[in-house]
Amino acid sequence: MKIYEFTQAPNPRRVRIFLAEKGITVPLEQVNLATADNRKPEFLKINPMGGLPVLELDDGTHIAESVAVCRYFEETKPEPPLFGVGAKDKAIVEMWQRRMELEILSMTAGSFRNTSDFFKGRIPQVKEYGEVCKNAALKRLEWLDTELANRQFIAGDRYTIADITALVGIDFGRTTGIKIGENQKNLGRWHQAVSSRPSAKA
Amino acid sequence: MKIYEFTQAPNPRRVRIFLAEKGITVPLEQVNLATADNRKPEFLKINPMGGLPVLELDDGTHIAESVAVCRYFEETKPEPPLFGVGAKDKAIVEMWQRRMELEILSMTAGSFRNTSDFFKGRIPQVKEYGEVCKNAALKRLEWLDTELANRQFIAGDRYTIADITALVGIDFGRTTGIKIGENQKNLGRWHQAVSSRPSAKA
Repeated sequence: MKIYEFTQAPNPRRVRIFLAEKGITVPLEQVNLATADNRKPEFLKINPMGGLPVLELDDGTHIAESVAVCRYFEETKPEPPLFGVGAKDKAIVEMWQRRMELEILSMTAGSFRNTSDFFKGRIPQVKEYGEVCKNAALKRLEWLDTELANRQFIAGDRYTIADITALVGIDFGRTTGIKIGENQKNLGRWHQAVSSRPSAKA
Repeated sequence: MKIYEFTQAPNPRRVRIFLAEKGITVPLEQVNLATADNRKPEFLKINPMGGLPVLELDDGTHIAESVAVCRYFEETKPEPPLFGVGAKDKAIVEMWQRRMELEILSMTAGSFRNTSDFFKGRIPQVKEYGEVCKNAALKRLEWLDTELANRQFIAGDRYTIADITALVGIDFGRTTGIKIGENQKNLGRWHQAVSSRPSAKA
């Protein structure tokens, strides 16, 4: 078993934090996004979408998509639960994981993809859409601050995959100047707490 | 228990098909997107994101996000399994559900949102980004056709939530002229098969 990843990219970080919280160690193999090794034919056989991370199982099966990789380990090592416990809690965690992905991480990533020199010539960049993403992300941080007024973590009183997605999404916002506002005290307190966990350095 | 939804929109259709496959009936309450009832203060208390569908449980809990709603019912009524069985299969289904959402549904929806009169004045539309989405969707349909050469359904030999997301995503493409090509025989065969299931009319 091993995981293809690239340490500087946001999605592989989600899986590394998840594994650290679970206390699981998996060998990591770097696929260099900077030199577009993820677009070479041998890697496209592993993941036709070209994305990282990808989990390779011992039987040769490849699991792409960070949340799918996390799901695999949630099933094989349920403790501590990071996707919720019981029908209602699992649904709530999934709702928040998706909100953090669609409203925060996709927006900070969309801002970077559409405006950075890194993606110039690699994808059809639309700078105006990058600005839309940036504005959306900033608005969502304001909202998230109000949500965190009455609970410790994103999906309730327990740390879950939703916190991981939010942390990675917000931290990646630094690439285009998207930051937690000084007046966003609840979000600042949460960010300080999740960043202090050893997993955040994974 | 009830579900807030809007029959013409793609995400509520995902949940209706899922429930039909499970043989579950839940009362539906319409929230009119055409008159922006989902942006009114009383609905934003139910889902601050304004999206549909939302499941309301008998204890007053609101579960937004279509996949989270589906997850709730997968947990409360596991048969027939639509999210996979066992760690590896669940991870594979999640990978394909995400690919169908990110590569197909998000692209057909992105094409519509950024170019249609329906969203004019509601969101900051970027027509050029709508074209990027349309081109991406068309390219992904070509790829999906090759993937379906050797298996019956999107995630393997069993119908799953990945088929639901793909069906809804592809059908929604009609709004902006994104269609399965006549030469895409595998994809055409699959589309015919999943469209023939009674759930497709839900």
